[in-house]
Amino acid sequence: MRTRIPAPPRRPSSMFVNGATRLFGIIGHPISQAKSPEAITPALQACGLNAVLVPFDIAPADLPTAFPALLQLRNLDGLVITVPHKAAILPWLDGLGPRARAAGAASILARSSDGKWLGELFDGTGCCASIENRGVAIAGSVVQLLGAGGAGSAIAVEILGRQPATLRIHDPDQDRLSQLQARLQTFCSDVRIETGFGSADILVNASTVGMHAPDDSPVPVDYLTPELVVMDCVMEPDQTALLRFGHRAGALTISGREMFDSQIDAVCDFFAQIRANKASDAVYPR
Amino acid sequence: MRTRIPAPPRRPSSMFVNGATRLFGIIGHPISQAKSPEAITPALQACGLNAVLVPFDIAPADLPTAFPALLQLRNLDGLVITVPHKAAILPWLDGLGPRARAAGAASILARSSDGKWLGELFDGTGCCASIENRGVAIAGSVVQLLGAGGAGSAIAVEILGRQPATLRIHDPDQDRLSQLQARLQTFCSDVRIETGFGSADILVNASTVGMHAPDDSPVPVDYLTPELVVMDCVMEPDQTALLRFGHRAGALTISGREMFDSQIDAVCDFFAQIRANKASDAVYPR
Repeated sequence: MRTRIPAPPRRPSSMFVNGATRLFGIIGHPISQAKSPEAITPALQACGLNAVLVPFDIAPADLPTAFPALLQLRNLDGLVITVPHKAAILPWLDGLGPRARAAGAASILARSSDGKWLGELFDGTGCCASIENRGVAIAGSVVQLLGAGGAGSAIAVEILGRQPATLRIHDPDQDRLSQLQARLQTFCSDVRIETGFGSADILVNASTVGMHAPDDSPVPVDYLTPELVVMDCVMEPDQTALLRFGHRAGALTISGREMFDSQIDAVCDFFAQIRANKASDAVYPR
Repeated sequence: MRTRIPAPPRRPSSMFVNGATRLFGIIGHPISQAKSPEAITPALQACGLNAVLVPFDIAPADLPTAFPALLQLRNLDGLVITVPHKAAILPWLDGLGPRARAAGAASILARSSDGKWLGELFDGTGCCASIENRGVAIAGSVVQLLGAGGAGSAIAVEILGRQPATLRIHDPDQDRLSQLQARLQTFCSDVRIETGFGSADILVNASTVGMHAPDDSPVPVDYLTPELVVMDCVMEPDQTALLRFGHRAGALTISGREMFDSQIDAVCDFFAQIRANKASDAVYPR
């Protein structure tokens, strides 16, 4: 009789992903810097979902074929959209939330129970939530916003929804500044929207100053006082020059990472809420 | 001065997936039963890769649009193909391995360093590896194979590559049995390929008997002897009637799960080998 070799031990199994895992993704190009996979995956799993959020690297030239095809995956329930696709994906969606309609861009997509894809823009939500989580009221305050680009527009829309006394916006690009001011005024007539730079209760940096040159600050050091709330949307580095100088001046400082973290619950709620509804029940017309 | 609420603790991060994670997938319909995500993900990570294998549920009607679009994802490095897509995806590949060409189907796809997609069929590889891992030589043996379908064809090709004394194949469907015999004979003239059922050294069940009726065995109990090697490709249930009866008769028994596990190293090697090569260097013409 032959020598019998016993069966090898069973291979280890991942406890993290299996055939029944529901898929979420983030699309962008490049994608390796994206924080959503590592940040949103634990939040989805903490809700009791067998789900993972993975990066999808889609180059702009491939978007018109790759994006609608991705939406056909039967086990894909949601997508985060990042640079440069936030406006480009709109034509393929079945409905948009009010912030996405106001800004002409969407950052989060979810599939409803009857298979419709709905989009909303959450870029401003985390900013306002992170300020309010620190006990600071936006209502009645003077807010100085720096930057009238994509992030600045989304944050401006969200701040206006909180009824500040004044929203003042600064951007070196006068054209896009006036365009944003005009757009904002069409759906918010009861808040004073100024352009320029001046004293405020809350400073929000939505420009890229501090992102590439870590010692650059978008405001002079003597602008920073103990009474000011300083929020910087820049996520890398974690402690920008603005936050370091603000902290040294005694201001309450809030980082881009804190803003990002504050957004996660809102994103998971959106996924859950849309999944539970038929698109026809949702308040998101195209 | 206002009461200052401290910054909330940083959110937990997934140590399993991030923006730089390389994607692998399995496509099929349905997909929730697939074992590859939980089995291959730990094997890829054990090779030091930041990688995850996720399920992609693609319905047959969506394949012509969804499949080629999926290949455009810049961070997708490999795919496992399962029912019902193994033959249907061939037109979109840039090259095929010898087993895939012989069987007209591919189960594993990998992207070469210059972006070409190459396919190979590994369904027979795990079967032969799991037999050999138990110290059993296929060379010179009489092998009785049950089933001339997709799995049976792939296993027949792999067994013939090991130079058995005789390969005998049984299938109640005489047409597909004769077609398989004819196809096998075209590329293997030096091994005796018989049809029918008779005594053997190694029995391989590649039929579905035992999958849906857990007390059904594809052979009579008195066929099973202590000298026989009994391999069952059925994965669910883990211990089929054939394996239980074989074990009781004193035969060496090998399960479908053991076959699947034996295939994992070959699959990871294929991913690594193709990734390291330009398609033009690979020996996989279309």
